[in-house]
Amino acid sequence: VPGVTMFGTQLGLALRRWCPPVLGLDAHAGPDEYLAARAGLGHEEVSRRFLRAAGLDVLCVDTGFEPEPLTSPAELATLAGAEAREVVRLEQVAEAVGHRLAGDPGAAAGFAPAFQAELAARAEQAAAFKSVAAYRVGLDLAPARPTETEVAVAAAHWLDTPGGVPGRLADPVLHRFLIWSGTDLGLPIQFHVGYGDRDVDLHRCNPLLLTGLLRAIEPAGVPVMLLHNYPFHREAGYLAQVFPHVYVDAGLATHNLGRGSARLIAETLELTPFGKFLYSSDGFGLPELHYLGAVLFRRGLSEFLRAGLEDGSWTRADAEQIARQAGQENARRVYGKRAG
Amino acid sequence: VPGVTMFGTQLGLALRRWCPPVLGLDAHAGPDEYLAARAGLGHEEVSRRFLRAAGLDVLCVDTGFEPEPLTSPAELATLAGAEAREVVRLEQVAEAVGHRLAGDPGAAAGFAPAFQAELAARAEQAAAFKSVAAYRVGLDLAPARPTETEVAVAAAHWLDTPGGVPGRLADPVLHRFLIWSGTDLGLPIQFHVGYGDRDVDLHRCNPLLLTGLLRAIEPAGVPVMLLHNYPFHREAGYLAQVFPHVYVDAGLATHNLGRGSARLIAETLELTPFGKFLYSSDGFGLPELHYLGAVLFRRGLSEFLRAGLEDGSWTRADAEQIARQAGQENARRVYGKRAG
Amino acid sequence: VPGVTMFGTQLGLALRRWCPPVLGLDAHAGPDEYLAARAGLGHEEVSRRFLRAAGLDVLCVDTGFEPEPLTSPAELATLAGAEAREVVRLEQVAEAVGHRLAGDPGAAAGFAPAFQAELAARAEQAAAFKSVAAYRVGLDLAPARPTETEVAVAAAHWLDTPGGVPGRLADPVLHRFLIWSGTDLGLPIQFHVGYGDRDVDLHRCNPLLLTGLLRAIEPAGVPVMLLHNYPFHREAGYLAQVFPHVYVDAGLATHNLGRGSARLIAETLELTPFGKFLYSSDGFGLPELHYLGAVLFRRGLSEFLRAGLEDGSWTRADAEQIARQAGQENARRVYGKRAG
Repeated sequence: VPGVTMFGTQLGLALRRWCPPVLGLDAHAGPDEYLAARAGLGHEEVSRRFLRAAGLDVLCVDTGFEPEPLTSPAELATLAGAEAREVVRLEQVAEAVGHRLAGDPGAAAGFAPAFQAELAARAEQAAAFKSVAAYRVGLDLAPARPTETEVAVAAAHWLDTPGGVPGRLADPVLHRFLIWSGTDLGLPIQFHVGYGDRDVDLHRCNPLLLTGLLRAIEPAGVPVMLLHNYPFHREAGYLAQVFPHVYVDAGLATHNLGRGSARLIAETLELTPFGKFLYSSDGFGLPELHYLGAVLFRRGLSEFLRAGLEDGSWTRADAEQIARQAGQENARRVYGKRAG
Repeated sequence: VPGVTMFGTQLGLALRRWCPPVLGLDAHAGPDEYLAARAGLGHEEVSRRFLRAAGLDVLCVDTGFEPEPLTSPAELATLAGAEAREVVRLEQVAEAVGHRLAGDPGAAAGFAPAFQAELAARAEQAAAFKSVAAYRVGLDLAPARPTETEVAVAAAHWLDTPGGVPGRLADPVLHRFLIWSGTDLGLPIQFHVGYGDRDVDLHRCNPLLLTGLLRAIEPAGVPVMLLHNYPFHREAGYLAQVFPHVYVDAGLATHNLGRGSARLIAETLELTPFGKFLYSSDGFGLPELHYLGAVLFRRGLSEFLRAGLEDGSWTRADAEQIARQAGQENARRVYGKRAG
Repeated sequence: VPGVTMFGTQLGLALRRWCPPVLGLDAHAGPDEYLAARAGLGHEEVSRRFLRAAGLDVLCVDTGFEPEPLTSPAELATLAGAEAREVVRLEQVAEAVGHRLAGDPGAAAGFAPAFQAELAARAEQAAAFKSVAAYRVGLDLAPARPTETEVAVAAAHWLDTPGGVPGRLADPVLHRFLIWSGTDLGLPIQFHVGYGDRDVDLHRCNPLLLTGLLRAIEPAGVPVMLLHNYPFHREAGYLAQVFPHVYVDAGLATHNLGRGSARLIAETLELTPFGKFLYSSDGFGLPELHYLGAVLFRRGLSEFLRAGLEDGSWTRADAEQIARQAGQENARRVYGKRAG
């Protein structure tokens, strides 16, 4: 688009401010100089530098978005000098099972048990499951667990494709089945919420639309993680306040808003209990995003904490505890064990 | 919930900052020390101290929320050294009438006149009516006054219960009937709007959903008070700007957001005319909430006014007038008399 | 309304701060003194002063809102010492055509070609088209171009009025037809979005409701300008980020929020690429609004830019470029030529 460049955004300005020094350049180095330095160091060294500079101990990596081959969690861990754990995307597992069954007449009846067996196997090593229902059908999902018959009918409809190759899964019944299957296995369930790529219909991604489903899931005892949430971060904070099993982060928006992410973090923390707020980067593709997510989160949270310290609203001990909770303790507690 | 305590929130930090001195402790006293001092002073002395410290002249007290016996308006007034006036909750009156009629076959036809007679009696001493339709059915209410037949049918449906004891009222036709009955009596009508307890479906509590009803009520000449509103406070401000009979407050959120309530107040005052913005605490249960509501409102409004004073956007006389309007004059004018 | 005056708002305070000096008075002059000075100078001199003080080079003037005779673009240009270009309101053209056809039986079939011919003629001198569908039917418009039959049926329904004089156009099919006819002519299309007068149903004016239509229009290559947007400015910024042809402004709210417009501008720029953000005043009626729109935009954008300069988030060159883009370059590029 004429007049519009990737550097002409808050993200672009933040990148120019924070990333060149990691490559040995001055802050605010120009795009050409930056791209030349990046090419000179090579992709692996660039990735290693940014991931180390992010200062991570553990990464939870969603392995389900595969438009192109991705760095594996183990490779990311090595680059970052950290530990990595896998987040299993429910839809990716379901689509793999669907592809396997698609050639087989009458396979739809077998979809549910095949999916559940596969998910149970994947759960062994996983930190959490993730639903991208927001991208596919939106978050206005009926609360009830779908019946076996409903699932079989929906699966038959999905798998009955002309070429025998099912398209991507986008059926409210099936998304609900995936989510409920996840809760049965006792791992935390992440929901993509709020903005993302342009194929989101953002007005269907308000986390408040999940209210009924959150109530229904609560007895299962699994944590529900509302990821990203912008521009519905206040709504997400409300859900974290009133539902004991709901947690929120401000990933993706943190790096996209650049300097503006301090206000985002402050707004998210209006209602979110400090034991329910987690760091996340939603870093993907460019290693710079992992670093910017971390830098801008630390700066935004520091600004929030410092403002309250300066006018005596809380103590240094309070501020340090909130920083530890958001940066580490909440994640370790929530992702550390299975429910049930 | 592990890792989550009532002190690990903005409200908890605000409580630790502001409340201990009222009990003779240092600001930021620890929870144990605070609870010990509270127990030592006894409930009545604690209530008296916080209500006095709130610096109130008149309290408008909603008497309709009765999960357990509550301090009466007169008791609150004595504790606060102030005057108290009653806000009559429409649904509480309707449910009392419904309970009385429920054993009586054919009673549904008598519900409407019985309710209206009871409401007229209650109106004698009341400052306002309040609707909690938001909690029961949401705010997407049809604008028109329901017909007698519609009301009778809805009442029959509500009162026709197996055990003869009607459940809580949650029927759009009946909520609309209650509201219109209130307007006939000329008192201001308060609407709970936006967030509250977890039984709210918050996506149905956006005040913009009231737009049609607000247009329909306007000719009746009664003020409509949109209470609380978070996170729809900007939307509420818009309604106060375009409709002459609409007023807003930022109660409940003021204490729950703690230090963050300054931003809330500034955002609410983006569009709300200064003659339409009222102080409210939505204090309930803990006397600390009355005090925190008052302290944080004063601090938030002061911060708003000071910022504009410092850069010359308004004068000291302007600032003082806005403070008087929000803290007192608007409420005295609106609640001071009946319409019609 | 008792207690509520036009000066008791953020707009009123901003007017008292910024406008009296333009008339030779001290800032914060009282209303009486201000109105006297205004009357003494006369309307034309007052208009000239405020429009000159706004510091405009080019005005894009929507000529379609005509409850009373308005200053023409040429007159505004002379008063402002600037150039003026016309924005053609689609609904105004359609209503003029409708009035012409209304007496003629069987005219409905001729509506579509007559409208398109008239619009093509008006497009010769126009900078853009504008849709006020938000005011009439809301923004939840089906994406597809309506068929000829659908348009003819809708036009017949609209034009078949008892007195032979059609009412104002408010039919989703016709609004969509107008918009698609505009895209065929290659000019940018403006949408009124978000708040405005009280006849808006604001909950139907969220720009996210346009998502499907924006996707459908994208291949046509015409820029889509989302005007005003408050309180959905973050949502508008998201659309500008993900759709290459979408642009946003913060007009109308800029002067209505007064001092608070700095926060509005900062929030709008959270996601909006700097090449997609345009100045606008939405000035109408009072010449003060043109001036206040310009002053408050410059101050708000300056505050945004200064905050980032002060903590080293960007360079002076970055800040200057963003100011040039928003104040001039983006508008010149978008409105400077036809697509296709």
